[in-house]
Amino acid sequence: MNEFSSQAGHRAWLVSQSQLPQGFRVGTRKFAFDSVELKKASSMTLTVIALNEPTEAFSCLFTTNSFPGAPILVGREVAASGKIGAILVNNKISNVCAPDGVEDCRATCDSLAELLEFQSTEILPGSTGVIGWKLPVPEILEQLPAAVADLQATSILPAAEGIMTTDLYPKVRSQNVGDARVVGIAKGAGMIEPNLATMLVYLLTDAIIAKDELDAMFRTAVRSSFNRITIDSDQSTSDIAAVLSSGTVAVPDMDRFQSALNQVCQDLALDLVRNGEGVKHVVQIAVREAPDSEAAHRLAKDVANSPLVQTAICGNDPNIGRLLMALGKNMESVCPEYDVSNCQVRIGGRIVFENGACIVNGEVESQLSEYLKSAALYETQAPDAEGKFHPPVNWPTHERLVEIEIILGVGDGSAIVWGSDRTHEYITENADYRS
Amino acid sequence: MNEFSSQAGHRAWLVSQSQLPQGFRVGTRKFAFDSVELKKASSMTLTVIALNEPTEAFSCLFTTNSFPGAPILVGREVAASGKIGAILVNNKISNVCAPDGVEDCRATCDSLAELLEFQSTEILPGSTGVIGWKLPVPEILEQLPAAVADLQATSILPAAEGIMTTDLYPKVRSQNVGDARVVGIAKGAGMIEPNLATMLVYLLTDAIIAKDELDAMFRTAVRSSFNRITIDSDQSTSDIAAVLSSGTVAVPDMDRFQSALNQVCQDLALDLVRNGEGVKHVVQIAVREAPDSEAAHRLAKDVANSPLVQTAICGNDPNIGRLLMALGKNMESVCPEYDVSNCQVRIGGRIVFENGACIVNGEVESQLSEYLKSAALYETQAPDAEGKFHPPVNWPTHERLVEIEIILGVGDGSAIVWGSDRTHEYITENADYRS
Repeated sequence: MNEFSSQAGHRAWLVSQSQLPQGFRVGTRKFAFDSVELKKASSMTLTVIALNEPTEAFSCLFTTNSFPGAPILVGREVAASGKIGAILVNNKISNVCAPDGVEDCRATCDSLAELLEFQSTEILPGSTGVIGWKLPVPEILEQLPAAVADLQATSILPAAEGIMTTDLYPKVRSQNVGDARVVGIAKGAGMIEPNLATMLVYLLTDAIIAKDELDAMFRTAVRSSFNRITIDSDQSTSDIAAVLSSGTVAVPDMDRFQSALNQVCQDLALDLVRNGEGVKHVVQIAVREAPDSEAAHRLAKDVANSPLVQTAICGNDPNIGRLLMALGKNMESVCPEYDVSNCQVRIGGRIVFENGACIVNGEVESQLSEYLKSAALYETQAPDAEGKFHPPVNWPTHERLVEIEIILGVGDGSAIVWGSDRTHEYITENADYRS
Repeated sequence: MNEFSSQAGHRAWLVSQSQLPQGFRVGTRKFAFDSVELKKASSMTLTVIALNEPTEAFSCLFTTNSFPGAPILVGREVAASGKIGAILVNNKISNVCAPDGVEDCRATCDSLAELLEFQSTEILPGSTGVIGWKLPVPEILEQLPAAVADLQATSILPAAEGIMTTDLYPKVRSQNVGDARVVGIAKGAGMIEPNLATMLVYLLTDAIIAKDELDAMFRTAVRSSFNRITIDSDQSTSDIAAVLSSGTVAVPDMDRFQSALNQVCQDLALDLVRNGEGVKHVVQIAVREAPDSEAAHRLAKDVANSPLVQTAICGNDPNIGRLLMALGKNMESVCPEYDVSNCQVRIGGRIVFENGACIVNGEVESQLSEYLKSAALYETQAPDAEGKFHPPVNWPTHERLVEIEIILGVGDGSAIVWGSDRTHEYITENADYRS
């Protein structure tokens, strides 16, 4: 488990994770433009992740939101067409529900395809930032050659930084499997600048693997990672998770490759929660002995998304009453006529509910409160002169979690969900910019 | 629509609503006791609502939470036994998941039954306040005679005040139907003191009506009122909604009686949201032309419970991107392959999304922001020296709503849901008491 006492220490660790697999290059270009909607100068970064040759070995998962952004609509076509040669991402503007958004998206993909001598259908687009605004297409076309000229085969870190919006720090994770390598970057989770969150996840590998096998393994990895996190129960219109393989290095053992994929995805998923807007505590909720895993997942999410549980954890309050309330509110639908005397609840390994009654007293409460404090990523600072709250650090100080275990005693279904607390810093990030 | 410029004005209006129907009396008793768990002096109010004679004409709806409080367990037995003579409510302690909670609850009901010369099975209990603590039974038994001595047949207002915990003001609503009368009180919605929210709703009427008919009409009224509000998507372990009839006054028209029940329930439901913890804006979300009313309800709740929508409204930000995101996140499951060009969204009657694109520009945005400001119940005040936020008023200044309409254009299902924004005042109420 990592612990970083400084931003420099965190950055050194990121660099150690960032080596690109064989067959990939990364380039970025930051530029200023005049925003039509803001009526003032703004800046955008273009990020290009290019394969040396287009690959058939990839898997892309897109948001299921019914109001998808233009890059999702275009990306689905790219994925269906069979080959990907490069990824093109811009931050600042998400290109969702903007007039002529799809045409604008295609124009940028066409331009990159020409520069890289790939087909237009081989460019996977991604956009993150404000909803409803139009992409500055002429400026993007003008700046793309500089991004391509910047391509290098050493580090993915510039891409991890290039796709950031209000993320406090870049997110990079990697694993080696024999001589093959899996490296992943991610951004998002929580509200962004000041519109919508977008989760963008890109994994690169040089492992030799068939398309169908990669797709199945990636879906498995995503199911137990990105699909198990929740910051605010909301789902972006622009989420993309993709893995691309350059197919250049033999893998000794496919089980180990699956484990590596799982680990990179889970580490990035927890990074997303840890850097979620206003997140002070990362909370792990494990539900065990449920009727089935679907029921366990549902109940864990009910607890994770309960504002009353979230605010209690923010306040370092081991509030067992709120946990039981959140657990019980939909239980009838997944576990009818549940006998609560079968239930055991633990916080940080300590039993707080058993045989149908809470086990709480002043001493236990204060020990649990200390446990919650020790898992906090920072201490809330006094608000500024305008009453706004800002986290005092912009790197992850540690990777400790608040561990909540719920054992239902009725079956063998289990699920783990990672969520967060609900803080003044979240409200400042998502409400105070306007009021 | 009411508007109150002072607490005195609000109170005068409450008094005008408070006349008891025939056949009922109300008494309360406030007393001090030593809390075992807090290890300090605390105070509790007992509220007794008594019929002159036990009635068979009643309907009780209880929480479906799987961790119900002792008064819910006992109350279900009372409802099943066929007659109710009185309601006994205590605030301060909710008697949920406490050792011997059911025995404690029965002991208080037995004592009141003896004082009123009713059967023990004719007393409907209710408790609201901290979870996990034990009721101070000896003190309650000692104080009950004073509550009974206090019984009067004039006003329900003392009961509306007696069941409050951290509610800012009592909630009373009434309607007349010919010579018959329906009066209702409510408390709750949002976190309480500092544990769990409990919605307690009691309606009294003197209308002559059969039990089955009253039950059906009450369920209809609750479906379009209390089941349509959400403060934090959480459901209490102690919720009770009940209506009792003394059966003494003939009703000229049962349709008018249903309308009166509906109106009292809807007015109280909106009062609960308006007085929800930290609520600054009450938000009405109407979804129309959905595949069916169930789908409309689900989508309206998704929008109402979205933290990103809630924080935008807190900040007077007419953030259409967040509305679309929240609407779209589960739409695939209730309205597969939805064509967004059929969708129209209005805020305050103004169209902000149509033909698949947002209609926003600086002028529209600032007008909508003014609209949101005008619907605010108060202006957020600077935090106190400890960084805590407190609403500056403790009465409802007006009854204006933020009106959001979503027209899907695919069917004839519709639903209205009432929710709220998410504010620093909510976080202070629910997290800051401990951190």
